[in-house]
Amino acid sequence: MTLTDIFVSEVIGTALLILLGAGVVANVVLPKNKGFNAGWVVITFGWGLAVYAGVWAAWKSGAHLNPAVTFGIIANGQDNYVDGVPVNLTSTLVYLAGEMIGAFIGAVLAYLAYKKHFDDPDADSGSKLAVFSTGPAIRSHGWNVVTEALGTFVLVFVILQFGNSPHELGPLAVALLVVGIGMSLGGPTGYAINPARDLAPRIAHAILPIKGKGSSDWNYAWVPVVGPIIGGVLAGLLATAVA
Amino acid sequence: MTLTDIFVSEVIGTALLILLGAGVVANVVLPKNKGFNAGWVVITFGWGLAVYAGVWAAWKSGAHLNPAVTFGIIANGQDNYVDGVPVNLTSTLVYLAGEMIGAFIGAVLAYLAYKKHFDDPDADSGSKLAVFSTGPAIRSHGWNVVTEALGTFVLVFVILQFGNSPHELGPLAVALLVVGIGMSLGGPTGYAINPARDLAPRIAHAILPIKGKGSSDWNYAWVPVVGPIIGGVLAGLLATAVA
Amino acid sequence: MTLTDIFVSEVIGTALLILLGAGVVANVVLPKNKGFNAGWVVITFGWGLAVYAGVWAAWKSGAHLNPAVTFGIIANGQDNYVDGVPVNLTSTLVYLAGEMIGAFIGAVLAYLAYKKHFDDPDADSGSKLAVFSTGPAIRSHGWNVVTEALGTFVLVFVILQFGNSPHELGPLAVALLVVGIGMSLGGPTGYAINPARDLAPRIAHAILPIKGKGSSDWNYAWVPVVGPIIGGVLAGLLATAVA
Amino acid sequence: MTLTDIFVSEVIGTALLILLGAGVVANVVLPKNKGFNAGWVVITFGWGLAVYAGVWAAWKSGAHLNPAVTFGIIANGQDNYVDGVPVNLTSTLVYLAGEMIGAFIGAVLAYLAYKKHFDDPDADSGSKLAVFSTGPAIRSHGWNVVTEALGTFVLVFVILQFGNSPHELGPLAVALLVVGIGMSLGGPTGYAINPARDLAPRIAHAILPIKGKGSSDWNYAWVPVVGPIIGGVLAGLLATAVA
Repeated sequence: MTLTDIFVSEVIGTALLILLGAGVVANVVLPKNKGFNAGWVVITFGWGLAVYAGVWAAWKSGAHLNPAVTFGIIANGQDNYVDGVPVNLTSTLVYLAGEMIGAFIGAVLAYLAYKKHFDDPDADSGSKLAVFSTGPAIRSHGWNVVTEALGTFVLVFVILQFGNSPHELGPLAVALLVVGIGMSLGGPTGYAINPARDLAPRIAHAILPIKGKGSSDWNYAWVPVVGPIIGGVLAGLLATAVA
Repeated sequence: MTLTDIFVSEVIGTALLILLGAGVVANVVLPKNKGFNAGWVVITFGWGLAVYAGVWAAWKSGAHLNPAVTFGIIANGQDNYVDGVPVNLTSTLVYLAGEMIGAFIGAVLAYLAYKKHFDDPDADSGSKLAVFSTGPAIRSHGWNVVTEALGTFVLVFVILQFGNSPHELGPLAVALLVVGIGMSLGGPTGYAINPARDLAPRIAHAILPIKGKGSSDWNYAWVPVVGPIIGGVLAGLLATAVA
Repeated sequence: MTLTDIFVSEVIGTALLILLGAGVVANVVLPKNKGFNAGWVVITFGWGLAVYAGVWAAWKSGAHLNPAVTFGIIANGQDNYVDGVPVNLTSTLVYLAGEMIGAFIGAVLAYLAYKKHFDDPDADSGSKLAVFSTGPAIRSHGWNVVTEALGTFVLVFVILQFGNSPHELGPLAVALLVVGIGMSLGGPTGYAINPARDLAPRIAHAILPIKGKGSSDWNYAWVPVVGPIIGGVLAGLLATAVA
Repeated sequence: MTLTDIFVSEVIGTALLILLGAGVVANVVLPKNKGFNAGWVVITFGWGLAVYAGVWAAWKSGAHLNPAVTFGIIANGQDNYVDGVPVNLTSTLVYLAGEMIGAFIGAVLAYLAYKKHFDDPDADSGSKLAVFSTGPAIRSHGWNVVTEALGTFVLVFVILQFGNSPHELGPLAVALLVVGIGMSLGGPTGYAINPARDLAPRIAHAILPIKGKGSSDWNYAWVPVVGPIIGGVLAGLLATAVA
């Protein structure tokens, strides 16, 4: 498998992840949608099943879809990302680029799928940003980082166990894990638990000609990048320690 | 496996799909039902599990149940639908006929299961049509086609990956995918993502002697046919390009 | 495997099915419970997972837990219930007896689990009966039989496909099927789809010293017996015809 | 596998279980959270998926995570907990210590993840305790013990069947079982069904400097210890009797 194959795989997988993930938020927060105000069950299962579709689509490259997973694998000391692709600076940058570009594309596609609901004058600017990026329930950057790091720690640590355990369900296992993290640790920050998932759509929000959009909240943008990376690296280190 | 076997298999599978799919809408939108107003979680899981039952019942023929899947397989350049059944005009027409006739039968059975609730004077004509066919939240035929095409693209592209990936859960995988598409991309149009699912029940709605029924909204009927076919074909082509 | 083993297995499995199934209704309809008014998602998943637990517990005997399944297997023309146990009058009576006695025990256990909530003066008699047995949303015995027959047809027909298909998830497959039937066809009658599930708990309701209980609604009791048996037999016959 | 490995495995698994389990309660009961008032579906799936993550993380030690499971295995007469680790007093104490210490750590982590919501003056003391430990809907220690014993009986009995049945899904099977028990038997007592899950977080609640916290309700603390142990032991004995 070439680095080009990996790039394409991660782009497609992350694009599907964000198309469906941003899509479920749009369905629930933008007025007139059939799922408007459908609640937290729809948000958490929607994001979990977005991961499900993305992992299926990117299976060949290991379906990181998330820089925190990539960094977690590095911290875990693995030699190869997939057969024939050693962990090094070049391959790592290919993964990160695929994740960011895929997430950007997914955010644009979600915007197109919900175009008329973004144009709707009943939709407020805060809801429009929420489709793209997370924001805290109680703004406190330090504690918000803690929450994001804990959520991502659970994600990456358990994913690393999948490879060492006698059972494996693949995409479904990751999907259920993400549903669980959302339900259990998503309350304070909306669980980015993935720097690409938050940053690339925030860039899309800033660039796209969205009617009546407000601030992209760049002040908060570092939190869902730094928190997940900390959590992913700690998970990789602990997984190595207890292997 | 003969073409007759394929026809029977697709008829039964699509009939179960629409019996349960139209059924869950009836349960949620027709007054006095025990699931009345039960919300989007029930709609999305109900449709997903309708696919689940339909795929189990039509496993032998590959369980298309959906012309967009049939066209996606053609666009993907596959040689056979199932072992011994080459992709050609005759076999394609057999699949399409099975899907349409099955969907019609399923719609009639759903009508019978909910007969007293269709007869109920508290049920309005819009809800009665919603049991059979989709309609847009914001009517805009062009953007509605975009939304249907995107949803169907995700459906067919990921289904085509199932065959290339090391894991396979079969009916459950398709069911979860449909739950996810409904939650994430079902807001603007109600996610037909299947021409047979929308058109054949709309014909049933026009024909059946439903008390107090209104228009079958033929003006919109082409959207959930054309959008899904575009999405399915694009998915087949991309799947070929990145295989 | 002896007939005694089969009897014990079906008793335990059906008891768990009804303990959890009656339990979820008690949780949702009896005041002060933590799940009070939790809605149709909880009811449908609760019953589905009740089937899940029951099927695991009764795996050895084939986990009928339901006379409609037993009759469906007979109509399907199978030679043996399980290895070494031929389908005949004696073995059939053992299954039916195990199903009925297990369902009765499960209903008593659910009553004990929710004892203080049955004693609660805020609980009305209709809700107390609903824990044990189904009742129609719109009373119409003929159409109620149709609905019960259709739901049970789907249940038994798809279960019979599990044995002929290349994939099998066992207990989970049946559980998801029951969730789907509940969501899609449970609106008009509350989906007994199982004569033992309805009749044996109704007998328990009549016998148990439940505070403030009302009628056991014997007038309706034949519907969720006859409807499911019709549906199960038709499913067995069709499954044979298309095998 | 050494006793140290078992201890570490149970600590990590139980810590993840309680981090996610206490977390989902915090999300639903502490104001301003994105999942505030999200309802019983989120609670039950959140706890089920907390089990899912915990079981994956502790697979190597058999993932008890629960003294009632440990006692159930003893009552079932099994010779070894895992290969090379015989059931004896020392190994049993290692499991129990890992479960209690892991649950304590998980409760502290959940407190940190939701720190700003615990500090929030809108949060009442009863909700804060509910994040850590269970309490009865109707206080009646005798009947509360019955409910806890029944719920734990179902948990341990079905888990013991997993080993004897031809199908196995591992972590998912336990997760779904816990979702089902919560929906069906969680109404009266909030389903501790695990002494470590209730007692260790209650100790954490007593020790942690939680703003505006109230009583730790020690009067009730024995119920979710004794009830689950009774249920687990009875399940182990019955599983042996019918094996």
